[in-house]
Amino acid sequence: MSVSQQVFLRDAMRRLNLTRDVFAARIGVKRRALDTWLLPEGSQEARSMPEVVGRFVTEIVENESLMRKYAQSAQFGPLRDRIAVEGKHQLLSVDQFTRESVEELFRIADLMQPIARRQKVSRVLEGAVLGNLFFEASTRTRVSFGAAFCRLGGSVCDTTGFTFSSMAKGESIYDTSRVMSGYVDAMVIRHPDQGSVAEFAQATNIPVVNGGDGPGEHPSQALLDLYTILTEFSRLGKLLDGAHIAVVGDLKYGRTVHSLIKLLALYKGLKFTLIAPRGLEMPQDIIDKVTQGTDHVIEQTHSLREGLVGVDVIYATRVQKERFSGEDLEGYTADFQVNKALVDQCCGPDVIVMHPLPRDSREGANDLSVDLNDDSRLAIFRQTDNGIPVRMAIFAVLLGVETLVQHSLRDVTWSPPTHIGPDDSVFHGID
Amino acid sequence: MSVSQQVFLRDAMRRLNLTRDVFAARIGVKRRALDTWLLPEGSQEARSMPEVVGRFVTEIVENESLMRKYAQSAQFGPLRDRIAVEGKHQLLSVDQFTRESVEELFRIADLMQPIARRQKVSRVLEGAVLGNLFFEASTRTRVSFGAAFCRLGGSVCDTTGFTFSSMAKGESIYDTSRVMSGYVDAMVIRHPDQGSVAEFAQATNIPVVNGGDGPGEHPSQALLDLYTILTEFSRLGKLLDGAHIAVVGDLKYGRTVHSLIKLLALYKGLKFTLIAPRGLEMPQDIIDKVTQGTDHVIEQTHSLREGLVGVDVIYATRVQKERFSGEDLEGYTADFQVNKALVDQCCGPDVIVMHPLPRDSREGANDLSVDLNDDSRLAIFRQTDNGIPVRMAIFAVLLGVETLVQHSLRDVTWSPPTHIGPDDSVFHGID
Amino acid sequence: MSVSQQVFLRDAMRRLNLTRDVFAARIGVKRRALDTWLLPEGSQEARSMPEVVGRFVTEIVENESLMRKYAQSAQFGPLRDRIAVEGKHQLLSVDQFTRESVEELFRIADLMQPIARRQKVSRVLEGAVLGNLFFEASTRTRVSFGAAFCRLGGSVCDTTGFTFSSMAKGESIYDTSRVMSGYVDAMVIRHPDQGSVAEFAQATNIPVVNGGDGPGEHPSQALLDLYTILTEFSRLGKLLDGAHIAVVGDLKYGRTVHSLIKLLALYKGLKFTLIAPRGLEMPQDIIDKVTQGTDHVIEQTHSLREGLVGVDVIYATRVQKERFSGEDLEGYTADFQVNKALVDQCCGPDVIVMHPLPRDSREGANDLSVDLNDDSRLAIFRQTDNGIPVRMAIFAVLLGVETLVQHSLRDVTWSPPTHIGPDDSVFHGID
Repeated sequence: MSVSQQVFLRDAMRRLNLTRDVFAARIGVKRRALDTWLLPEGSQEARSMPEVVGRFVTEIVENESLMRKYAQSAQFGPLRDRIAVEGKHQLLSVDQFTRESVEELFRIADLMQPIARRQKVSRVLEGAVLGNLFFEASTRTRVSFGAAFCRLGGSVCDTTGFTFSSMAKGESIYDTSRVMSGYVDAMVIRHPDQGSVAEFAQATNIPVVNGGDGPGEHPSQALLDLYTILTEFSRLGKLLDGAHIAVVGDLKYGRTVHSLIKLLALYKGLKFTLIAPRGLEMPQDIIDKVTQGTDHVIEQTHSLREGLVGVDVIYATRVQKERFSGEDLEGYTADFQVNKALVDQCCGPDVIVMHPLPRDSREGANDLSVDLNDDSRLAIFRQTDNGIPVRMAIFAVLLGVETLVQHSLRDVTWSPPTHIGPDDSVFHGID
Repeated sequence: MSVSQQVFLRDAMRRLNLTRDVFAARIGVKRRALDTWLLPEGSQEARSMPEVVGRFVTEIVENESLMRKYAQSAQFGPLRDRIAVEGKHQLLSVDQFTRESVEELFRIADLMQPIARRQKVSRVLEGAVLGNLFFEASTRTRVSFGAAFCRLGGSVCDTTGFTFSSMAKGESIYDTSRVMSGYVDAMVIRHPDQGSVAEFAQATNIPVVNGGDGPGEHPSQALLDLYTILTEFSRLGKLLDGAHIAVVGDLKYGRTVHSLIKLLALYKGLKFTLIAPRGLEMPQDIIDKVTQGTDHVIEQTHSLREGLVGVDVIYATRVQKERFSGEDLEGYTADFQVNKALVDQCCGPDVIVMHPLPRDSREGANDLSVDLNDDSRLAIFRQTDNGIPVRMAIFAVLLGVETLVQHSLRDVTWSPPTHIGPDDSVFHGID
Repeated sequence: MSVSQQVFLRDAMRRLNLTRDVFAARIGVKRRALDTWLLPEGSQEARSMPEVVGRFVTEIVENESLMRKYAQSAQFGPLRDRIAVEGKHQLLSVDQFTRESVEELFRIADLMQPIARRQKVSRVLEGAVLGNLFFEASTRTRVSFGAAFCRLGGSVCDTTGFTFSSMAKGESIYDTSRVMSGYVDAMVIRHPDQGSVAEFAQATNIPVVNGGDGPGEHPSQALLDLYTILTEFSRLGKLLDGAHIAVVGDLKYGRTVHSLIKLLALYKGLKFTLIAPRGLEMPQDIIDKVTQGTDHVIEQTHSLREGLVGVDVIYATRVQKERFSGEDLEGYTADFQVNKALVDQCCGPDVIVMHPLPRDSREGANDLSVDLNDDSRLAIFRQTDNGIPVRMAIFAVLLGVETLVQHSLRDVTWSPPTHIGPDDSVFHGID
């Protein structure tokens, strides 16, 4: 090399449009090592890069197809590189997405619909193994991820419950994560402690999906929620830009609504009506994040009846009693229940009613009423159904097989029912 | 249409030989809606059927192959339609079967034997996912269903234990069932509460199999029991019609024997000897059901020694202590144990000894003795082995792939042992 | 037959080089029956062998290829026959191996590496079902076995926890094992009671793998440990014969080190330094077994600093507090921790540091230090990674498909990371 190692590497990173983190990850060296190679030649910490690295980077920058493969681009390159976390193919937070990348994910989810609807079968991930690690019980989320991976042809190893045997004996998250990474090809992790999934992710290079880390994030839920809104709006001929969204319930502790609002804020001119009992309002930092430098409008109210007037979407959530104790729940009475009478009174025939589920259907529970069950405006089961194509898309993207799905499809052999739920026929217009 | 909508629909149902329930389910409309279309034109509740429904029904009745496909017939049409529950492809109770339909199921189970015996492999359900939902622990039943689904090529998502997280938070069976139905292609449900599985089944259109609902039913167990009796009789050159069956143990609470006796009653001229401790006799309503309008004979006794004389089948069960408390157990002593000495004394060389398992093999337990373990008359493991082909047949029928199995077979790649159990060689005559 | 039945059978066994146990198992008769056929003709217990047995054995001894197939040979025949337990294809103990057979197993593990490293996919066991029965929690071991079986194309049914429902109701291990054997094609069993897995194995003819039976054995762990040592030595250009191995920690209760030392003793001229706290020394019977009739040298010390000088391998283990109570733990202080400073001081750059994991990484724990995590001498994750190819080899051998793997390989469809762990790049020399 006629130029210095520092100039050579900086030039390569600039031409590839990569940060040090991403560049290091992409060529398979440690960020720490890269830093030492970039130090001025005389400095005490500076080190020479191994010859093999020099040759590898030379090949990349001198070869057009390799350039395209390794370059960071908003227009080109696999989606997984554009949403990567420190160069890794992981899904930890909705913050990883732009409007463009989230819509690309959803185009891939659309490709998955024939599989999710049991018209087609794909075996594109045959031979791959998912580690579905649930340190906290969440059957529906666990089965949704597991079934999504199976529908791509992969196999699933589950662990459930708080008593992960080794961790009870003092094993670190680092060790657990690295050991499991040697066994499986991707991990979904649900854990009660905020930040724990990120810690898992740092200890491995295989794809990790955050399946919920306590009060932290649950990005696949927010993604399937947004996907549902876009799909329903498309059916109704509406645009999300400029829409009016009501979010109802415990907005202080509900991580689901925090993540969803951040994703929705990628769109333009939304009006959010936040309807919470006193003491359970949306935290100010999230409101600031959504409004600063955007054209979104946020209104807050404690009155369900006032807040729901004229909205396009009602996103109801339950009060997660297990998340707090001894606080003021006055004002959270039966008046706070979203039910058919209220929806009929405040909203039009095109409103869609959503809920992250589970909902408390017991007598006297302050949760979304069951009297909307055969009302086609209730989108909650179309919403859970969407968990499959969205999670399939997440896996396909993180494992880099999204372009192979289309040509891997074949017809199902069995005969599924026309509609999954008895009440779905209402929605499908035959009632 | 020149005729009225009511006449048109009634005529179609008559020609198809379908009830309203089945007709509605088969063309994919709600029974409730169909009812309103059938009301007199002037009535307040009457509604016009959508044009698409009219066209669909016209196509069916004017097209011979569609007629055959949609018609209800004891002779034709897929088995799953003939055993359907309100038009749905579900297995909730043995009451769904006639002698003809149960024997057709068993012919399909026979087709599965080369797979169950590890000579052949089938992947006919590749891409399908089973939700194996066990709200009550039952490892053997769960693994038997899971392995059966795997042997057809499908994948399995399990849940186990009482603490289904969402239901603990007040989620209804309706919601749980509908949500899971969006994830999987069939569900097996085990639940401690009688009727709960039927409630699950009502909330979904996908195939549901009752894996045991407390004191209710456990139809796959009764089916594999009957299949075992027929298979053993076939080997011994006996007919089930006219046979003598002894049923031993707790006949009051044992759901297994209740279901089995109802199935056996589909045959002719059986003699049942019911041998129970005082206070644990067979409920009168089941005895009535079996004897009224049939030529079966039922004898009851508290003496094991008397009851077993000359029988063709001994079906022993254990006293399920967890099912009752504080009742009179006098008379249920060691004298009540089925063992080799007793079988030698009372029965011939062709008797078969069955048990639904598990049996209590601890010292002093009043259950089927282990001293018959290498006696080829003991059929208990041939009985559990039969769980695989029978459950495979149930899945194949409910998912509508039974005709595809035969041509999907290929040879196994691995080398299984000649006999599964060390004591099986006795039975196979090399001892 | 012109010769007597006894002479005929004895001659066949001699020519096939088989014991009675193995001969009986191989032709599919009971040992008990064989014994009666071999009794002198006049004796009361003597019986004639069935004609079919005579014909079968005649075919074997008169046909060269059948002779090769059924003959016991150190040179020929499938590996699973040479490591068989009473003629059964089971892995219960490291005592089943010779140096030759363990190295043959490792050559098969080498074949599995392209699959374990996610370059290739095999479906050679498609259609086979593993029963992964863990009566004691051990997530890593369960997932490692499960993932290994999946990577060969098979399906896995798991059970976990102490509350195996049927066994709690008094079901014998015999019944449990025989019933499960009718459902699955191989079983891995983990159980807290020593000898229980052997009891499971006696009740079935399908392959059984001991996944750890309390203080008993855990052979797959010892095998992957030995495989790791041989692989690392091969990389470093070292031979195991004549090497110096330090074993550190609780050597009294650690079943892992007991099994590993027995396996290592198959080699020549090893020097073992056993470093244990007072009261937790290696049992004398194991020391005797390793040294009697061999050229191995064993040294024992309580000083970590002295014991580690110049060794080739440090095998560190944790004190399993749950295995004992109330005993003298003096001397087991922080001085007993293997850490970077100590390794730097006592050992060369080619030492490898191993641990069966999990290790206790909490502050103040007396276990292998985390400060070696990015030191390439730390082999603990290469060791756990090796669990996959070694367990794949075990399954392939026991099920008799090892020769089919090579031709079943195809490329993976997804894009795995270059290195699994972020710290692996150190090892791969790019740092």
